[in-house]
Amino acid sequence: MTPAIAGEYRLSTEAKLKGFVTAILTAVGVERSDAVTVGDVLVAADLRGVESHGVARLGSYYVSRIRSGRLAPRAEVTTVRETPTSIVLDAGNGLGHPAGKRAMEAVIAKARQSGAAFGAVRNSNHYGIAGYYAMLALPHDLIGISSTNSVRYGAPTYGKTIMLGTNPWAYAIPADREPAFVLDFATTTVPRGKLEVYKRKEKQLNSGWAIDADGNETRDADQALRGALLPLGGFGVDGGGHKGYGLGLLVDIMCGVLSGGAFGNELPLPSDGPLPGKISHFFGALDINGFRDVARFKRDMDRELRAFKDSQKVPGQERIYVAGEIEYEKTLAHRENGVPVHAKVWAELETLASELNVPFDIAR
Amino acid sequence: MTPAIAGEYRLSTEAKLKGFVTAILTAVGVERSDAVTVGDVLVAADLRGVESHGVARLGSYYVSRIRSGRLAPRAEVTTVRETPTSIVLDAGNGLGHPAGKRAMEAVIAKARQSGAAFGAVRNSNHYGIAGYYAMLALPHDLIGISSTNSVRYGAPTYGKTIMLGTNPWAYAIPADREPAFVLDFATTTVPRGKLEVYKRKEKQLNSGWAIDADGNETRDADQALRGALLPLGGFGVDGGGHKGYGLGLLVDIMCGVLSGGAFGNELPLPSDGPLPGKISHFFGALDINGFRDVARFKRDMDRELRAFKDSQKVPGQERIYVAGEIEYEKTLAHRENGVPVHAKVWAELETLASELNVPFDIAR
Repeated sequence: MTPAIAGEYRLSTEAKLKGFVTAILTAVGVERSDAVTVGDVLVAADLRGVESHGVARLGSYYVSRIRSGRLAPRAEVTTVRETPTSIVLDAGNGLGHPAGKRAMEAVIAKARQSGAAFGAVRNSNHYGIAGYYAMLALPHDLIGISSTNSVRYGAPTYGKTIMLGTNPWAYAIPADREPAFVLDFATTTVPRGKLEVYKRKEKQLNSGWAIDADGNETRDADQALRGALLPLGGFGVDGGGHKGYGLGLLVDIMCGVLSGGAFGNELPLPSDGPLPGKISHFFGALDINGFRDVARFKRDMDRELRAFKDSQKVPGQERIYVAGEIEYEKTLAHRENGVPVHAKVWAELETLASELNVPFDIAR
Repeated sequence: MTPAIAGEYRLSTEAKLKGFVTAILTAVGVERSDAVTVGDVLVAADLRGVESHGVARLGSYYVSRIRSGRLAPRAEVTTVRETPTSIVLDAGNGLGHPAGKRAMEAVIAKARQSGAAFGAVRNSNHYGIAGYYAMLALPHDLIGISSTNSVRYGAPTYGKTIMLGTNPWAYAIPADREPAFVLDFATTTVPRGKLEVYKRKEKQLNSGWAIDADGNETRDADQALRGALLPLGGFGVDGGGHKGYGLGLLVDIMCGVLSGGAFGNELPLPSDGPLPGKISHFFGALDINGFRDVARFKRDMDRELRAFKDSQKVPGQERIYVAGEIEYEKTLAHRENGVPVHAKVWAELETLASELNVPFDIAR
């Protein structure tokens, strides 16, 4: 084991982590260019401080699914339908990242040509952070949109059947000197991983996070893990839970129904056996230039974002953030000081490397 | 006064209410075709049970602003920029409804031609329910999107300056035999009107709804009305308040910044004097046929919506709704049994009619 550097965390670098992901995935049969894409997406999550969607998933999700035959390492991605403003891909039960990136790149190219375009991918798997794909639009002065349905964890308002994934929406909008506005959020109040953390720490959940298996709101992590996540806004309608439920169902429609893929209760549950992922993604891009001069837009974005950041804080708070700002600052810090990897994940990666006979050299 | 019919409410009809709105607005100088559009949008809100955005606003908002010179009754709406997939209009500080409808109709025509299109309107005023414009896409087998910024009522996460409107998002997606999915929600947890209702009833607010003027969360309606609304998800980040804040800011960007209109702290506060509305709207449409066969899509929408409706309920609840279903059922019921108008609103409309010398004949 590599010695600990910062408490529970050890430090790697962006390049080393990307290289490691690529090596591991090619060792289990993924084509090199696809493996590079997965590395790019996973390490973007670690850079942004979204550990749950980074290299922590390499062994436990991607490699494990490939080895058990649930995910095709060399899937053929096919184009189902294509117009000057739309594209639908079938990922052939392959990795979500290369199929997602291909779809978003096509959407970007079409939006640069036509001004606006959308795409969807079906028969795919977990594609990492939604924001990654939305952000691909930024260098082209486009507004980027990305979302995905997922394994089911959540219940609709007043329901106890698990019907919805964490179904994130992501929007990326460029600014001038300010970092881009990057909103990337799950439509459940919290991710399932948060319940697991609270269980380990023997902490009570907040209200508005989960219900038990009978459909009653619970603050007990054990009960919640046997129940379902609540939509953003919490239980019932008083806190706006119907809004989060609506946003989650909207994602399922835009991804699953629009792509002709799986949706609703056809999607797998976490407890399901060796099923294909059946996940769908949705992408969009629109050209700012169709609305106004891009340079002026970006300068106004700076003014808008600064006005929020400079507004008055509530007692005890020193900063107001705009969406994507925390993740942007973490990316800069992690590029400068190293990318933290939890000691437990680090050990898992080391085991994985040894199993697959891949050199383990990720320490900074 | 017309006698009460159903407790606090009296009953009118769709046709009579629309005719009355048209007559009142033409009496204060609005062109007939524009007045008809406003009537259509306002009465759609009353039909859908969204009283706060219906004829209740006719006198208190629209006519009052026209009479005080804050809203131009015959504004010239100009096209600022136009491409095959985008349009930007300047509403010239006129009524939001005709400008909004014109923009959405242009977006629909462009999306039918190009597959996807977006539009924005600046220098406008309150345009009624966001869902009305999104729903204009439905007969064309398009997915419709609509949003608007508004007078400021809400604070960002960890902020106490009032920076954000209730900034709704609306999405309309057609189904086959099921009513369309129509998601139309404010990105604050509750509207300001809800605080006023709780104040009248001397009820405690729920947590997650509002802060006082010092930025502390409050359950006192009086304090809250002097403070600010909280974003969907509530105070701080534990309940996902940063997500609602992000969605509200997204609306302000897509409406205000993208249109070249007012945004952020340039928007009026409720306490501001005789200012123009400075409101902006955003619209979008995408063609389902760019993704898959429309008939199949609609049948899958039915399956999706029914799966949610048929899923298991929590104790004490008999129905799970999908977005837009309650409003659809109310519309049918109000067309059958009459459109309820609150007695107080009814009296205001009668006074307005008498002041403007317009016949008052709205009783069913």
